[in-house]
Amino acid sequence: MDEVTRRAWAYLSRVTEPPNPRLAGLVAAVGAVEAAGRIRCRDVNDERIIRATEARYQIDCADDDLELIDRMGGRLITEDDDEWPHLAFAAFHGVDRTTRPQGHPPLVLWAVGPSRMCEVAERAASIVGTRAATAYGEYAAADLAAGLVERDVAVVSGGAYGIDGAAHRAALSSDGETVAVLASGIDIPYPAGHSALLHRIGKHGLVVSEYPPGARPTRRQFLTRNRLVAALGGATVVVEAGVRSGAANTAGWAAALGRQVGAVPGPITSSSSVGCHALITAGARLVTRAAEVVELVGRIGELAPDIPRPTTSLDDLSDDELTVYESLPRRGARTVEEIAIVAGLPPTEVLGPLAMLDVRGLVTQEQGCWKLAKR
Amino acid sequence: MDEVTRRAWAYLSRVTEPPNPRLAGLVAAVGAVEAAGRIRCRDVNDERIIRATEARYQIDCADDDLELIDRMGGRLITEDDDEWPHLAFAAFHGVDRTTRPQGHPPLVLWAVGPSRMCEVAERAASIVGTRAATAYGEYAAADLAAGLVERDVAVVSGGAYGIDGAAHRAALSSDGETVAVLASGIDIPYPAGHSALLHRIGKHGLVVSEYPPGARPTRRQFLTRNRLVAALGGATVVVEAGVRSGAANTAGWAAALGRQVGAVPGPITSSSSVGCHALITAGARLVTRAAEVVELVGRIGELAPDIPRPTTSLDDLSDDELTVYESLPRRGARTVEEIAIVAGLPPTEVLGPLAMLDVRGLVTQEQGCWKLAKR
Repeated sequence: MDEVTRRAWAYLSRVTEPPNPRLAGLVAAVGAVEAAGRIRCRDVNDERIIRATEARYQIDCADDDLELIDRMGGRLITEDDDEWPHLAFAAFHGVDRTTRPQGHPPLVLWAVGPSRMCEVAERAASIVGTRAATAYGEYAAADLAAGLVERDVAVVSGGAYGIDGAAHRAALSSDGETVAVLASGIDIPYPAGHSALLHRIGKHGLVVSEYPPGARPTRRQFLTRNRLVAALGGATVVVEAGVRSGAANTAGWAAALGRQVGAVPGPITSSSSVGCHALITAGARLVTRAAEVVELVGRIGELAPDIPRPTTSLDDLSDDELTVYESLPRRGARTVEEIAIVAGLPPTEVLGPLAMLDVRGLVTQEQGCWKLAKR
Repeated sequence: MDEVTRRAWAYLSRVTEPPNPRLAGLVAAVGAVEAAGRIRCRDVNDERIIRATEARYQIDCADDDLELIDRMGGRLITEDDDEWPHLAFAAFHGVDRTTRPQGHPPLVLWAVGPSRMCEVAERAASIVGTRAATAYGEYAAADLAAGLVERDVAVVSGGAYGIDGAAHRAALSSDGETVAVLASGIDIPYPAGHSALLHRIGKHGLVVSEYPPGARPTRRQFLTRNRLVAALGGATVVVEAGVRSGAANTAGWAAALGRQVGAVPGPITSSSSVGCHALITAGARLVTRAAEVVELVGRIGELAPDIPRPTTSLDDLSDDELTVYESLPRRGARTVEEIAIVAGLPPTEVLGPLAMLDVRGLVTQEQGCWKLAKR
């Protein structure tokens, strides 16, 4: 991408509050450079673009922004770039904009980190949850995240305290890929207490934001950002969430995008699991293990194996065999007639089952009496 | 019921392993006295009844059994009695007997306790679970049981250690009705460690068994008994269950009987919740509160109230109002133009939202600048 085009995209990323589908339409129609030029000169036929850009069209700090992202070792990703996750963002086409007016892809992504956006999005799960996580929730988030990266699934989250942080950290510890989607500018580590964590993610994974450098996060931006967390994962799993939680908002975005939604159950005594239980009741998949999340993410040939079930040889017995088996005393032996009385079967029908049990090594005979074999 | 008839029922309750639908059919056709007489004399056309009673038809301890139940202050309940729970047992008509050959009502119920069977079954929930319960599971069982009896719902269970015991105990503590369905004879307290508990249930609630006095419980009897636990509750809730658990068997019976099935979630780290999570994934209702169980039990006008949600006045704001609100600094004030830039809105469109926020008491104006109101 040449410098003029880069500057145009940088300018456009700041000129309205994202996402703005009309601006995106203009860019698609005339290209970024022409779109930026027209907006600067107020030479746009669309009154709504004029209004949406009125407050900021004179601000042009594109050069500063690009210098900053260069200094950070990052890049500005747009749909002109190979690594733009077209497939992941295609899901926004299906969103009902009457209920979700923000249901559009971002115009750009400011990014820092070695992972390539489109490759990560091909095989990723979003792990989200409350900032007020319990030790149980942080354990569950870390366990799922570690299990996911072991299976080559990247972990997407929002970089927040609590569940998000536990998921990112576990992914990093397992040398896996992880993506933090910020609601602030790429140069504003938020929360500040996660500066070091976000720095590590930027060094080993990917930190992205659709907001221009310097942007401070607002409540609105968190909610808007959540759609990207949901879009970048093939499935979204809520690990812990209170009654009212941003994580439930992200889950709502995932459902609106046609993505699978999972939730981790927890103790009914924990207020941090109330939101998860509500999601499960509403139809989210109950998730207990990373393999189940992989199944939700939906790559073929990666079905979760069945839970291993302990089996005892009693499980294969017929009804009559089981009845006869149960009719033998724990200690000592019984005659066929005694067994028949206890079992409620005619003596003639006790012999067949006894023989079968004998073959299976479950009973033994001694001097005409039957007893349980030592197991 | 006259003594001859009572003796006939008592004889019939021991002459085969229950349930035996052919025996029940004979009794329905010719009455208990005649049926007992014919079986004793081997004067029955049905070869399968002859075979099923061959081992025990000569045993007649009806007098002893009746004397024992009298001594215990109990009674023998049959379909001839007013308190027979016809409605609860009618559900057995719908069971697929090819997969569930035991899917028949009991022939009789030996019972001890002041509660009347049919009245209890009109409004009851079954609370079941693993004997290897955790403290969390016992708490959850007790919490649900206490909440149920507070709402005049009786608690049915199997009298076992763990979840069953916690449910019975909590129901008793709250002066509620509770029913223990035994897999042993009514005079054989099982498990022995629950002798005192079963005695208390027999004093304040109801202990029942379809097995004749003296019968020792077997694995087969536990599984057969489970159908009665499921049938007597309008819903069955599994509180804790391992991978392989009798509780899941009871839940299976409940589903086969057309009853609602609920399961309590727990930590994914607890092996005692694995069965519950599997049930929820398979379609059981996730249950966290007694009110939800009452809803499953299905009396009209008893819907669980919504979970109370904390609300803040920010939740009612429009998108633009929220954007403007978020554009104000935490400390200090901003001009309309400054707010417009931060919000990404034209200055003219900032004024309306500011006025609305002012009306709601969320912002205040001072010397042409706006700031957040103290909340």
